[in-house]
Amino acid sequence: MKQRIAIDMDEVIADALSGYLERYKEEFQIELVQADLLGKKVYDVVQEDHRAVVRAYPITETFFRNLRAIEGSQEVIRELNQRYEVFIATAAMEFPTSFVAKFEWLQEHFDFISPMNIVFCGDKSILATDYLIDDHTRHFTNFRGEGILFTAPHNASETGYRRVNSWQDVHALFLT
Amino acid sequence: MKQRIAIDMDEVIADALSGYLERYKEEFQIELVQADLLGKKVYDVVQEDHRAVVRAYPITETFFRNLRAIEGSQEVIRELNQRYEVFIATAAMEFPTSFVAKFEWLQEHFDFISPMNIVFCGDKSILATDYLIDDHTRHFTNFRGEGILFTAPHNASETGYRRVNSWQDVHALFLT
Repeated sequence: MKQRIAIDMDEVIADALSGYLERYKEEFQIELVQADLLGKKVYDVVQEDHRAVVRAYPITETFFRNLRAIEGSQEVIRELNQRYEVFIATAAMEFPTSFVAKFEWLQEHFDFISPMNIVFCGDKSILATDYLIDDHTRHFTNFRGEGILFTAPHNASETGYRRVNSWQDVHALFLT
Repeated sequence: MKQRIAIDMDEVIADALSGYLERYKEEFQIELVQADLLGKKVYDVVQEDHRAVVRAYPITETFFRNLRAIEGSQEVIRELNQRYEVFIATAAMEFPTSFVAKFEWLQEHFDFISPMNIVFCGDKSILATDYLIDDHTRHFTNFRGEGILFTAPHNASETGYRRVNSWQDVHALFLT
């Protein structure tokens, strides 16, 4: 039986952070750069009176639909999908309005992933996979496989897990 | 750590079959009864020229929203939820338009289940739980825990799994 890899969506294959930053710039004419965000979430960095608005960005249906794929994710996952059983697992339950947009985004950008291998969940410890590539260490706590931390500004200082900085790193780890 | 139980939605906690039969009767003035359905799916029993229409019922958003809860499911799951970690796991990927309706149905009929414990998936072998209560044996094939078959007309003759005929049976199995 092939080994199984679960892969998170936001900040791992979908560039949600750029989505936030671009929308914030458009709405408030304030430019944040990724370096401002080290160790922080985007809504911790914006002006206090903008926080609620920014937190609500993912509630709008268009937010997910317009995100770009993270560099290298499509090529490497296509290759992983030959050798492993790949699942895309996203914590969609926080934003129920995003279900359809997330599903359609995956159909568009990762059309080689079967819908049968898409999981919308809350608590990711539910996943019976050997690996979970995610940018949030909280999902690794009760996960039964090995958590692989995908670098994002907010997790820059976290330790205790194998870390990958890019899809090239994932390729090196799983495909060479 | 508490044992974990994953519970399917259609025909286990949501009475989808009655939903099909009522809608079919309304649309075609033909009454099917559950006894006609032993060993069969509802779309195998209807007139051939109605099949495509009936197969499409779950695609409409209102279908899931109007389903009744299966008798006893609410009371027993409320009690299970005290002693076990309960997840509701539904194969939603076949009908992506149903995501929001299914989520809202759960919020209405099972408001004591945290959204963090809801899983929309395709292949249920992804679930890391000790038990899976489901009416489809195909989900048990690569499932790592024990599959418990919840009786529905279509699975009446299937063997090889522990079977429960009602939520009273589930109560007897897990709570006494």
